Amino acid sequence: MGIAHEMAKKQREISVAEFFQKNKHILGFDSLTKSLVVSVKEAVDNSLDACEEARILPDIFVQIEQVGKDEYKMIVEDNGPGIVRKNIPLVFGKLLYGSRFHALRQSRGQQGIGISAVVLYGQLSSGKPAKIISKIKEEEVGYEVLLTINTKKNEPKVIKEEPIIWEKEQGTRVEVVMKARYNRGKQSVFEYLQQTAIVNPHAQITFVEPDDKKTVFKRVTDELPPPVKEIKPHPHGIELGEFINMARATKAYRLTSFLTSEFSRVSPRIAEKVCKIAYLYGDMRPQDMSLSEARRVLEAFTKVKLMAPPTDCLSPIGETLIKKGLKNVLGSLRPGFYAQPITREPKVYSGNPFIVEAGIVYGGELPKDQPVRILRFANRVPLLYQQGADVITKAISSVDWRRYGLEQRGGQGIPVGPAIIIVHVASTRVPFTSEAKEAIADVPEIREEIELALKSLGRQLKMYRVKKERKKKLSEKFFIVNQLLPEIARKSAEIVEKPVPKLEPVITKIMNVIWIDEKIEKDGKMIKITVRIANFTEKKEKFDLYGDCPIGEIVDTDGEIQDDYVKWHVEIEPVSYQYKKIVLKNASGYGETNYYVDGINPSKVIGAEPLPGDWGIKMDFVEEIEEVEEDEQ
Amino acid sequence: MGIAHEMAKKQREISVAEFFQKNKHILGFDSLTKSLVVSVKEAVDNSLDACEEARILPDIFVQIEQVGKDEYKMIVEDNGPGIVRKNIPLVFGKLLYGSRFHALRQSRGQQGIGISAVVLYGQLSSGKPAKIISKIKEEEVGYEVLLTINTKKNEPKVIKEEPIIWEKEQGTRVEVVMKARYNRGKQSVFEYLQQTAIVNPHAQITFVEPDDKKTVFKRVTDELPPPVKEIKPHPHGIELGEFINMARATKAYRLTSFLTSEFSRVSPRIAEKVCKIAYLYGDMRPQDMSLSEARRVLEAFTKVKLMAPPTDCLSPIGETLIKKGLKNVLGSLRPGFYAQPITREPKVYSGNPFIVEAGIVYGGELPKDQPVRILRFANRVPLLYQQGADVITKAISSVDWRRYGLEQRGGQGIPVGPAIIIVHVASTRVPFTSEAKEAIADVPEIREEIELALKSLGRQLKMYRVKKERKKKLSEKFFIVNQLLPEIARKSAEIVEKPVPKLEPVITKIMNVIWIDEKIEKDGKMIKITVRIANFTEKKEKFDLYGDCPIGEIVDTDGEIQDDYVKWHVEIEPVSYQYKKIVLKNASGYGETNYYVDGINPSKVIGAEPLPGDWGIKMDFVEEIEEVEEDEQ
Repeated sequence: MGIAHEMAKKQREISVAEFFQKNKHILGFDSLTKSLVVSVKEAVDNSLDACEEARILPDIFVQIEQVGKDEYKMIVEDNGPGIVRKNIPLVFGKLLYGSRFHALRQSRGQQGIGISAVVLYGQLSSGKPAKIISKIKEEEVGYEVLLTINTKKNEPKVIKEEPIIWEKEQGTRVEVVMKARYNRGKQSVFEYLQQTAIVNPHAQITFVEPDDKKTVFKRVTDELPPPVKEIKPHPHGIELGEFINMARATKAYRLTSFLTSEFSRVSPRIAEKVCKIAYLYGDMRPQDMSLSEARRVLEAFTKVKLMAPPTDCLSPIGETLIKKGLKNVLGSLRPGFYAQPITREPKVYSGNPFIVEAGIVYGGELPKDQPVRILRFANRVPLLYQQGADVITKAISSVDWRRYGLEQRGGQGIPVGPAIIIVHVASTRVPFTSEAKEAIADVPEIREEIELALKSLGRQLKMYRVKKERKKKLSEKFFIVNQLLPEIARKSAEIVEKPVPKLEPVITKIMNVIWIDEKIEKDGKMIKITVRIANFTEKKEKFDLYGDCPIGEIVDTDGEIQDDYVKWHVEIEPVSYQYKKIVLKNASGYGETNYYVDGINPSKVIGAEPLPGDWGIKMDFVEEIEEVEEDEQ
Repeated sequence: MGIAHEMAKKQREISVAEFFQKNKHILGFDSLTKSLVVSVKEAVDNSLDACEEARILPDIFVQIEQVGKDEYKMIVEDNGPGIVRKNIPLVFGKLLYGSRFHALRQSRGQQGIGISAVVLYGQLSSGKPAKIISKIKEEEVGYEVLLTINTKKNEPKVIKEEPIIWEKEQGTRVEVVMKARYNRGKQSVFEYLQQTAIVNPHAQITFVEPDDKKTVFKRVTDELPPPVKEIKPHPHGIELGEFINMARATKAYRLTSFLTSEFSRVSPRIAEKVCKIAYLYGDMRPQDMSLSEARRVLEAFTKVKLMAPPTDCLSPIGETLIKKGLKNVLGSLRPGFYAQPITREPKVYSGNPFIVEAGIVYGGELPKDQPVRILRFANRVPLLYQQGADVITKAISSVDWRRYGLEQRGGQGIPVGPAIIIVHVASTRVPFTSEAKEAIADVPEIREEIELALKSLGRQLKMYRVKKERKKKLSEKFFIVNQLLPEIARKSAEIVEKPVPKLEPVITKIMNVIWIDEKIEKDGKMIKITVRIANFTEKKEKFDLYGDCPIGEIVDTDGEIQDDYVKWHVEIEPVSYQYKKIVLKNASGYGETNYYVDGINPSKVIGAEPLPGDWGIKMDFVEEIEEVEEDEQ
């Protein structure tokens, strides 16, 4: 027999479960410690997705129990809608089975692999079946299912299934025993849950560690993130092959109705126009479209103006949470500067909308001689592994941070300096580099957005440094003028036996600014901030002053609390002082307050910025200032 | 209807083809340029694997034709054994289908995804079917097949199939049209083929670019790499789940025969012993083994001594090719130092044997102010992407290169300096981080081996630098003693009107070394190396001198050519010189020669090292020297 026939005998089909059994590292199961983190992550992601879809405030219980040497049981229980009985085996016992794969909507799980991969890893490493309990609202009883995966067939094998009484109205509980190693610290289950809690403040997460230590990450808000809508694909970015598949599968009878009903942003008018440009009859059957006709349709779409895809399918983390996220990793370190987090406008890659958010803290007590720390999130899920493979890292490495005051060899690579950078990418389809969902692929459109966000942060950083320098210099001048001048005048007057001259006009002439600074006093858990406003101009000034305390809880102030700000209306006579106060609780890592003014020429004010109107305007302002600065250089 | 039921309606199976259609970046298709490289790589890897398996010297033709704006046709044709007619559609039109997945043997393709993924990407991006021609030796005709993949079912859809007359005796030709972009330079098809040719010197690769430029990477040797054997899994490292699967599927009737016949390194004696330790009867049916019994068997295996898995299943690149690989990327740059490449002993991870090889060049004209360049190979396939995600990069980053003279911030990260590092990992199963096979996962056992290889290279590097320094200092002394002393003696004698004293005894007392250095002269394509040997000891010395010219072709020498060395037997009187020569052709990037001595106390010799016996001894020697050096510090 010839070699070709011999080789043919060996050629055969591989089930996807067999594939992953042999390539479990692709799913993230490449070390004992990591396997546990990955498993908890998959289970918790599913719970959060299910709760949000059912509009339930998530209440998630996670427990890790040691059951042997290097063997642990993972338990994850939620109050989600539950899974109907007949689908339980498929959801947990079949790879590539799920509800979110075909939906264009932001969700954590998208591949239909995650939780069944955990079951697979459990049986592979411990030999034990997974135990699932699930109950739905409509039924009196829940069901307990013991199952494994038949890897040759990629089919669930149910070992036991029975109805049980469960005290919960609804929910799902997963128990998987696996070979693993438990630790705390970096890249641990604890870190994953902590970071997850930060960006999902509507979730309550209870965590019991192997030593029975219990931690509750409390729900901070009762507001669920706005429901994310499912969208249809956008004609820009859809690929020819996928387009033909859709045309073959559509139930529409006419090409125009196919285009309007199955794509987003295609009105009947646009559909007609596209058909015309493509030289096609609008009422042809879409199923009959030939390859070259389909290609003409897609080309025609590039010639018409289409709105960008709708973005209510996306759920950004938001400014406050980005700040909180940064605060949280800071621990007791005080940074010198919190930049205003950036939320970019939604953009599209291959027809999928996405949005980039980014934040940075800088200076203060952060370690100076280390690479900057990078926090990565995708669809509200913290990414703890594969930093080097991630588009976020690549974007950070390709920005020239030397311009913004960080050290960076050759203007490339991860910069060195006292900073933490946080980046969140939200999308209806995050392009992960592998099924382990540990890193986002280097998609040019996403990289560009991240780079633009980072550059905005970089400009803020530079501005902060420039202003700090300027304030320092002015501070010296202020001291001379305000302390020494009157002293010199008094002494001189004494010597020449004349009355002390009126110095105010002189001082105001020299200074000609509104001066704002603060004094921070700690008292146990309380922090008292005293804001000093000095009017060194020649006239009375009226304006609004806003203080932005990035962390802590305001317990007392003589201002008015508005969202994240404390607001004061200030009316101040020339050459006079006023004092305002804020008292904060639970603000142990407090650095410095950002002050903003409104109703006054901001160039007259030292120590406060113009009040940003909203996100967009705030950032416009930053870029404007930047341009001015660059012109000056 | 409740939310759980509503969600259940959406839950359904996803075909693996659908999965990859939506996640094509996981397969490496994440940019137009890269898609082309990935496609060529998958096709060429398959061709090389098929030829080697059939013991045929590979003759591979690659052509890229532009067929439209951003649209290219990839053609890859080989002289391999061909594919039997009925299997053609499955091999090219079904993901997760292949012959190498179930085999434990070193091969390039292992997953049964690669080439069908290319077909999938082609149809998805261009809408066009793939064209396959294949002919096997036993048949008069070949077959031409046009096919696409039915992604909903992950099944091939044959559009046309017909017998054709093909001038070749046997072989396979693949043509796929795809959206792509063509470039040359870094991370290009050209670079991939060039690097592939280097580590596969038995292959002839012809490449025609879109502008019809033709490059032939010539076959350098007619020797195929030794055939790699298929091995059985090794009991150490096999996982419980997999072990149970094997026990269920075995045709053996007795537990002992199951263990001896389906695992490597298990003799009947060991099987008996294992059964005894596990409290099991050796003639129980393996299919009846319970979970706890299976676990006892695996635990018993950890208590018996087993030989490491056989390693004739691995095919390292070898010293010469590693040097050639380094030479090739150097182009016209001359490095100062070629370290002896390291080939580590085979090791095992999760039952899979693997071997690590590494090499480094340093100094000379290499750029000093950049991160070191890293060349990565897995199973003789160059890895061009995802450097940051690769265990090779992680190993390089975690070695403290400052010890060895490279600059490295904090002793971590990719070092900066004039060096190129090459690392090859060969295994029966390379643990790639994703189906794109772009990076090797961070498996602790592999990382450790790479680190050890790198540290050996680092020690050589340090030794080179220490010796260079020492030689430089001695060179100054040599000059003073040998040039100035006689001059001073002559002058002094002249002044005092006495005869010039005999200085040789003085000089030899001061020096007491055999001094070896070389002069390099270029003449067109020729390089003439003159080796000077000076005996500054008090007696006649006899020894063998070996010159190792890492590159070029020796056209003339007064020595004896032995493998990679030129050998001279030297007999030299005290205080005298001898000159030897080597003339090289085609050695444009020639740096400096390594000299070795044998039959003399090497500590007496400056400018040559002791002759290494073989690989192992050579490296032992290096480590020994290192230890001595460290003791001295």
